[in-house]
Amino acid sequence: MATAGKVIKCKAAVAWEFGKPLVIEEVEVEPPQEKEIRIKIVGTGLCQSDLFFLLKCAKPSVFPVIFGHEAAGIVESIGPGVTEFQPGDKVIPLFMPQCRECRFCKSPRTNLCIKGSAGTLEGKNRENSRITCKGTKVLQFLGISTFSEYTVVKEFSLTKIDPAAPLEKVCLIGCAICTGYGSAVNTAKVEPGSTCAVFGLGAVGLATVMGCKASGAKQIIAVDINPEKFEKAKVFGATDVVNPKDHSKPTQQVLTEMTNGGVDYSFECIGNVEVMVTALESCTPGWGCSVIVGWTDTNFSAQPIQLMRGRTWTGTLFGGEFLTLDLFASVLIPFLKEKLLDAHLIEN
Amino acid sequence: MATAGKVIKCKAAVAWEFGKPLVIEEVEVEPPQEKEIRIKIVGTGLCQSDLFFLLKCAKPSVFPVIFGHEAAGIVESIGPGVTEFQPGDKVIPLFMPQCRECRFCKSPRTNLCIKGSAGTLEGKNRENSRITCKGTKVLQFLGISTFSEYTVVKEFSLTKIDPAAPLEKVCLIGCAICTGYGSAVNTAKVEPGSTCAVFGLGAVGLATVMGCKASGAKQIIAVDINPEKFEKAKVFGATDVVNPKDHSKPTQQVLTEMTNGGVDYSFECIGNVEVMVTALESCTPGWGCSVIVGWTDTNFSAQPIQLMRGRTWTGTLFGGEFLTLDLFASVLIPFLKEKLLDAHLIEN
Repeated sequence: MATAGKVIKCKAAVAWEFGKPLVIEEVEVEPPQEKEIRIKIVGTGLCQSDLFFLLKCAKPSVFPVIFGHEAAGIVESIGPGVTEFQPGDKVIPLFMPQCRECRFCKSPRTNLCIKGSAGTLEGKNRENSRITCKGTKVLQFLGISTFSEYTVVKEFSLTKIDPAAPLEKVCLIGCAICTGYGSAVNTAKVEPGSTCAVFGLGAVGLATVMGCKASGAKQIIAVDINPEKFEKAKVFGATDVVNPKDHSKPTQQVLTEMTNGGVDYSFECIGNVEVMVTALESCTPGWGCSVIVGWTDTNFSAQPIQLMRGRTWTGTLFGGEFLTLDLFASVLIPFLKEKLLDAHLIEN
Repeated sequence: MATAGKVIKCKAAVAWEFGKPLVIEEVEVEPPQEKEIRIKIVGTGLCQSDLFFLLKCAKPSVFPVIFGHEAAGIVESIGPGVTEFQPGDKVIPLFMPQCRECRFCKSPRTNLCIKGSAGTLEGKNRENSRITCKGTKVLQFLGISTFSEYTVVKEFSLTKIDPAAPLEKVCLIGCAICTGYGSAVNTAKVEPGSTCAVFGLGAVGLATVMGCKASGAKQIIAVDINPEKFEKAKVFGATDVVNPKDHSKPTQQVLTEMTNGGVDYSFECIGNVEVMVTALESCTPGWGCSVIVGWTDTNFSAQPIQLMRGRTWTGTLFGGEFLTLDLFASVLIPFLKEKLLDAHLIEN
């Protein structure tokens, strides 16, 4: 391509300061270095985690930063040593990389990676950024930064997808869909015939409902305080809906009564610590499993007896998905084409 | 027996009021009614849970009460309809009964029982007590009350043990040993070759160490602020010991460094919410599992990210043990005979 090996000037939404609006700026995106890949972003979602770091988590060393980590695009050029990608490949950047060498990557039990996302939020990683604005290196959020027309990522932070995939839709696979779907299928390992409750019906929650349905759950209770979300939840597989505002009893009591003792699995897809505890307590004692899917940095507070009575509390990042994202995408795309017609997308 | 069908007058340690010392009183123990059994208590342990309700949990409706739930004894007489026990049988009372009829009992996934221990702490159960002192019905703690020379329990709250069992030692199977051993074997399902940390080296903690060893753990780190407990922990299987007072770093950091990233399994055997969080954070991200074994009614406070990074937090009551306690006892007794020579016992 004509741009290969050269700096690309393009537009990006830069976050200069905590709590301030993003600013559309012209940025300079360097060519990819050793085992790096430069991609053109075609579609990107806006995730609560982006907003969390912009609006709630005052971490000055992060700024300036380009947010965005839920996207799909096309490989523009590859750096030296890249073997698995070619210009023109349709791809999804991975905010949870897989270096394939660390103790986590070598274990089938987790999708974590030592070279994972945590460190990429540190200001010290600014020097590794390939994006510059007004002479200043801009931190690449989670090593990706998809709120830019072009970005550069590590080879291990990228996965190829089906060339037929509609990028403006499958970008959601880059975070919300894997996170929700995987929380049911990989993390909770929902069993056929079980009862589930999903708290929060955003993109993550809807994908969780989808994962519960795919796992053969017989009852999927969708919980939200916004009743406008119930219709879509039913399309995705919800069998029952509960609006906590319609009940004077605590929601855990409502669900316990509906299910004769509590659900087998519950999922908190909001990032609200009070709902996390409600979700835990909505599970049946004995074997109930509650998964924290929504992100927050607030502490939760709960009673040990809730766990001692045989409940399990766990959580997930990116739904426990592995690098088989291309396979995953090929399974989901037909579903997405049919159902996800009005997803909220930001077109770059 | 000469006493069958008659009220037995005997000694018991009665707790008349919250926070006050137990009083040795003469009590009247009624004959067993339908599907009940009267037993002579031979050996009983003193558990933190007894002390908790006496000294920490001000629940006035509980008093007067006879505590004690970790015991072994001999069947004195049986009520109508009892089929599985005969006078003279050596037995251990179960504070976690198995009615064999409820949804919990019918599931292999839990040792909970709808007719379980929770309800037995309510004052309304006083009318079901078979023990009277000075004309007042005395609540039977957890449906048992082993701080009495004689007591009456439901048939489903009792299990037979090997006639050769030394009752003054195997009484500990009635709570501490099953709770600890089972937390490793049943609840965590410790895998061979794994790394474990056990916080708190009382009877429960030592039994947990034993369960980890029996499961084939390659490294068992025993943690206590009392170094005098380390020698016995090593006898039971600990490979390493850590005294948090010897370190300026947080204990979770010490253990993480010792194990190159955190243990596979951790167990809190104290009932201290701060240690519960330390135990959780001592587990490796990705797959670490922390089990709450110690009892308290204080809330814990922790960060959701500790779970979202792939840790699992669960808990156990009575170590997830089932009615196969007689089998369990026959396995453990040879070990107990050899190792548990100086257990602290209260002889009635």
